[in-house]
Amino acid sequence: MSKPLVLHDDRLFPADPTTRAIAKRLYAHVRALPIISPHGHTDPSWFARNEAFSNPTELLLAPDHYLYRMLYSQGIALEDLGVPSLAGPSQADPRAAWRLFAANQHLFRGTPSSGWLAWVFSKVFGLEVQLDADTADHYYDTIDAALRTPEFRPRALFERYNIELIATTESPIDSLAHHEAIRDSDWSGRVISAYRPDAVIDPEHEQFQSALARFAEITGEDTHSWSGYLAAHRKRRADFAAVGTTSSDHGHPTARTADLAPAEAETLFARVVAGKAGAEDAELFRAQMLTEMARMSLDDGFVLQIHPGAFRNHNTTLFSSYGRDKGADIPSGTEYVRALQPLLGRYGNDPRLSIIVFTLDETSYSRELAPLAGHYPALKLGPAWWFHDSPEGLMRFREQTTETAGFYNTVGFNDDTRAFLSIPARHDTARRIDCAWLARLVAEHRLDEDAAAEVAVDLAYNLPKRAYKL
Amino acid sequence: MSKPLVLHDDRLFPADPTTRAIAKRLYAHVRALPIISPHGHTDPSWFARNEAFSNPTELLLAPDHYLYRMLYSQGIALEDLGVPSLAGPSQADPRAAWRLFAANQHLFRGTPSSGWLAWVFSKVFGLEVQLDADTADHYYDTIDAALRTPEFRPRALFERYNIELIATTESPIDSLAHHEAIRDSDWSGRVISAYRPDAVIDPEHEQFQSALARFAEITGEDTHSWSGYLAAHRKRRADFAAVGTTSSDHGHPTARTADLAPAEAETLFARVVAGKAGAEDAELFRAQMLTEMARMSLDDGFVLQIHPGAFRNHNTTLFSSYGRDKGADIPSGTEYVRALQPLLGRYGNDPRLSIIVFTLDETSYSRELAPLAGHYPALKLGPAWWFHDSPEGLMRFREQTTETAGFYNTVGFNDDTRAFLSIPARHDTARRIDCAWLARLVAEHRLDEDAAAEVAVDLAYNLPKRAYKL
Amino acid sequence: MSKPLVLHDDRLFPADPTTRAIAKRLYAHVRALPIISPHGHTDPSWFARNEAFSNPTELLLAPDHYLYRMLYSQGIALEDLGVPSLAGPSQADPRAAWRLFAANQHLFRGTPSSGWLAWVFSKVFGLEVQLDADTADHYYDTIDAALRTPEFRPRALFERYNIELIATTESPIDSLAHHEAIRDSDWSGRVISAYRPDAVIDPEHEQFQSALARFAEITGEDTHSWSGYLAAHRKRRADFAAVGTTSSDHGHPTARTADLAPAEAETLFARVVAGKAGAEDAELFRAQMLTEMARMSLDDGFVLQIHPGAFRNHNTTLFSSYGRDKGADIPSGTEYVRALQPLLGRYGNDPRLSIIVFTLDETSYSRELAPLAGHYPALKLGPAWWFHDSPEGLMRFREQTTETAGFYNTVGFNDDTRAFLSIPARHDTARRIDCAWLARLVAEHRLDEDAAAEVAVDLAYNLPKRAYKL
Repeated sequence: MSKPLVLHDDRLFPADPTTRAIAKRLYAHVRALPIISPHGHTDPSWFARNEAFSNPTELLLAPDHYLYRMLYSQGIALEDLGVPSLAGPSQADPRAAWRLFAANQHLFRGTPSSGWLAWVFSKVFGLEVQLDADTADHYYDTIDAALRTPEFRPRALFERYNIELIATTESPIDSLAHHEAIRDSDWSGRVISAYRPDAVIDPEHEQFQSALARFAEITGEDTHSWSGYLAAHRKRRADFAAVGTTSSDHGHPTARTADLAPAEAETLFARVVAGKAGAEDAELFRAQMLTEMARMSLDDGFVLQIHPGAFRNHNTTLFSSYGRDKGADIPSGTEYVRALQPLLGRYGNDPRLSIIVFTLDETSYSRELAPLAGHYPALKLGPAWWFHDSPEGLMRFREQTTETAGFYNTVGFNDDTRAFLSIPARHDTARRIDCAWLARLVAEHRLDEDAAAEVAVDLAYNLPKRAYKL
Repeated sequence: MSKPLVLHDDRLFPADPTTRAIAKRLYAHVRALPIISPHGHTDPSWFARNEAFSNPTELLLAPDHYLYRMLYSQGIALEDLGVPSLAGPSQADPRAAWRLFAANQHLFRGTPSSGWLAWVFSKVFGLEVQLDADTADHYYDTIDAALRTPEFRPRALFERYNIELIATTESPIDSLAHHEAIRDSDWSGRVISAYRPDAVIDPEHEQFQSALARFAEITGEDTHSWSGYLAAHRKRRADFAAVGTTSSDHGHPTARTADLAPAEAETLFARVVAGKAGAEDAELFRAQMLTEMARMSLDDGFVLQIHPGAFRNHNTTLFSSYGRDKGADIPSGTEYVRALQPLLGRYGNDPRLSIIVFTLDETSYSRELAPLAGHYPALKLGPAWWFHDSPEGLMRFREQTTETAGFYNTVGFNDDTRAFLSIPARHDTARRIDCAWLARLVAEHRLDEDAAAEVAVDLAYNLPKRAYKL
Repeated sequence: MSKPLVLHDDRLFPADPTTRAIAKRLYAHVRALPIISPHGHTDPSWFARNEAFSNPTELLLAPDHYLYRMLYSQGIALEDLGVPSLAGPSQADPRAAWRLFAANQHLFRGTPSSGWLAWVFSKVFGLEVQLDADTADHYYDTIDAALRTPEFRPRALFERYNIELIATTESPIDSLAHHEAIRDSDWSGRVISAYRPDAVIDPEHEQFQSALARFAEITGEDTHSWSGYLAAHRKRRADFAAVGTTSSDHGHPTARTADLAPAEAETLFARVVAGKAGAEDAELFRAQMLTEMARMSLDDGFVLQIHPGAFRNHNTTLFSSYGRDKGADIPSGTEYVRALQPLLGRYGNDPRLSIIVFTLDETSYSRELAPLAGHYPALKLGPAWWFHDSPEGLMRFREQTTETAGFYNTVGFNDDTRAFLSIPARHDTARRIDCAWLARLVAEHRLDEDAAAEVAVDLAYNLPKRAYKL
């Protein structure tokens, strides 16, 4: 006997009736605001080609590392979930994979995935019973049939989702053809890119040397000379700007920055391209490149995003058979105070620059990041990220940053996802939690309700537009 | 004028009426479930001999480091509290020690000890007034008299406490005679052991060399050769298995693991037994032994528990006169991501293995441990431990692990105590806090109440049985 | 249209009606208690000379780094806010600076500053509308006029604020003339000093060598010999004791302590005064001096306060033009367990000594500081400090220390401020949050209400008097 699937109107609001009532009033100001998605990982080809998504498993399960990592942690093979390996696509039957997923829904109790999925199932596909072993086929058939209809094509969903703008993320060696196609189409949806040069900046990236060669081809610059390499970045940033890009993004193991003299930087680069860079040189080069990127930002206006602190590909066994981004990236302790000083010493006092820093180490919120952002004109705090993009995580972010950094040194929400279907659910979660936090401040007479309503709207809409220069 | 001692039925539940009502309904499902105590430090001789406990001070105060460390922190001498030193038993009069304890109850306000004690005093001994200077003698006399009766013998309390199974902890050089006696007796209580080989694994343990010699005597193996040493472990694990043991347990200064080639491990061991191991060698040896233990677990099925991060014997003055385990162990920052990688790289993908990891560093919950446990099939999270086995600590554990690891990568509660009398109070505290957390999820419409009830029962009963293979 | 300025009676209390009612009853016991301010940074000349404060900007904005750091973080120049630079006083018109401040009040939403200011504006100056661009001049005029009246002179405010005692902070090379003048005056206000010798202890302080020379002049000791240097400290501590001082205070980059043999200490000092101390020597010298100060405390009874973990003058650009203490000090990760062991090993078991330790790293509360303070007789925990002296920060302090250290290893509240006008608001905030925490314990039946009321009074009044030996 299947259970009803109900999305309660008051979900994520505190149980205390006074606080909940305030939260609901605040939420009424933001629930229908357009979505600004200034940082994420959707595929621009979806919006360029506007083809139908394939099937429930390939759309919702196989690409979602939040889902398959949890299933994997309980001994379920990735192969059985439709996750492709380095050897090629999974041989699993998509329906069988879906059934396996359905039968293990208890694993997601209390996780943000359960909330995002419930929204997608209920609001997008109109499902009225919960997903479990008994309803797996009903789900599969319903979703599969819907995906074949025009209303579920990417552009139709984009519009239905009230997305005002979405940013994808591309590498300098990626083609921007899809973005150009969208720009040149008659479709009015705004899909921009973000400049993510890790593959040509990180000497420890497994594709670094080949990426550097490709970088030269694309730009016509000598990317093995320091000046040519920098020129290649500048050219490519200009190409990105032409498809609407307003930010670069950097996923480094640490937050370390450096401010080397030009000659030192050139010498370091020479060691790097010669393949003579050890771990410390690699780290120093990534550090220096953040400052180089900031310098270019002063010219082209790009916002500089730093996403540090993930220990990538922790599971070496899995990495060798499945490759990157398979749920085996683990946060690690991340230091910001010493790490960011070189960059902030150089450009941190310049209010024209916007550096948005993220963390996977929540201990840095109140200890390091809020104090830094509450002082340096150039520094802003990105929202709770990845493992912390969850009701508790979003609330801890506000509880631990607001008192020192305020609201106006933060930049609203990033969904940061490739799970396109769930984007409104993610923004809705963030809006509800922000309203819950503001409601507590109001209920405890720490903030007036009219000011709280203004803040709620700023967090949901105005701050991301301003911070990302959209 | 003494104050009434009242245990409120709703203790530890949130004040919000909606949430409290849900918590109470959830708690009704678990309050009477049998106790599974898969990890702790009670004395097997209690259950083997079933002799009466001696007196209130010797039973409740002198062995409880939570209590005497707090009193000591306010300038009260351990000697005056009945705590034995290296020189022998305390010379303090037990009743005088009890009075001192009674007169300082205000120190325990807001601590978990106050809740555990209130339960013991009220539920076990039927006391109806609070403990203070005026009621000290009344308490002493009441408890002392009770302890002389058959109803307060260890086995009677075990049964009254509805303990389905309890695990003690022994070293490989300890006798298992008490466990054998219990097993061979006509008493049906299940008392098993856990294999805790720190004394023969830690080259920095003050008894390492003598322990190694004793290890050889007991096993008949040459514990000074690497192969003999490993064989000794295998033999002893088999002996432990024969008295019901299903786990090993390892209390190391850090969580470091290693996966050395066999020849390297052998060479390292040679340095260790020759007394030539410096601090780094000692650390590396402990690290390697965790992997060796995991390897043996694949054969004998033992769950591998890791309890890292205590800085032992911090107070050198106290250590020299009172020895180990006198309330002077202090948590320290503990890194898991790099530390566990060698072990997890070797065996972390094997779902037959169960590694249960604990922490004294709460910052690792959301940053390291939940992400690791939410990915690796072999890894599970032990409950909030020691200083964090408290209402706030238990709640932080759930708040900071659930969203990434879910409930099913955790293993229920461990009381981890030698304070036998308080065991039901500790399990009851954990059950209440878990219900409080689940009730908040239900009240905020993040989880259905029927699912929450299922989780509550799993946390209280099913998960510990499954995780510890009981 | 300006908005009413209302200070709600229930501010900072939890919204749940049951808990709020308890909090209000507890707060009734403490709201009117005199203020004990055992550690802070007010200027003794205010109380010695009792001259009128100059104008709203110079009194409330230009010296308050909480305020101008936030404004600076949004691109407003310090110069425009009236903040003096190394080149001299700001050239900004005080009224223009005030208007700039007024127009940016939204930046302070959700910060403790907004609460402190609201109290000052409403309770001290009787303002009835909120500060914003429209009311800026009304505010400026009202406050400016009030400051010219006798009721707003420092001594009148001191009395109106019901301050029983306040401690300022001076360096050994500062004059104590103002304190002597107060002592010898017919005014009965108690204004004492604290001995803060960082300038003569920290070899990396920019004024170290000149401070050492001045230290010699003032004391008549040879401060370049180890014995003379220690004798100079002893003399100066005696001078401070003569104006009522009961504590020393130490603001070090880390919590490191050392316990060197006398000859080693002497050799180290020789390197330090010769200017041959590198970073490690400087760190070791600061570490050793904490132990030296503790040794002197055993003679003169001074409480030893340690305020570690601020990365000072992080913004090198700002430092070069504005100097120290301009909102650019950033907390950093701070280790206590290993760092304090030498000092605690030497004197930590001596209940005559009182060491009060603070932190800017909240992760140390439950992991390191509460366990240490819950064991060592000499160690107590200072209250939530600086960035964490805020409603959320104060609550986290209690939530994360009480269960292990209890209430009686803490020392009540420190305002630690130079913002004299806001001192009652800060104490009131701390009292309200402590009552809110106690109310939760009562509502959850973890503490009786009469015991909670006793604790509330102890935290607000008795503990600071006892801990600081006042």
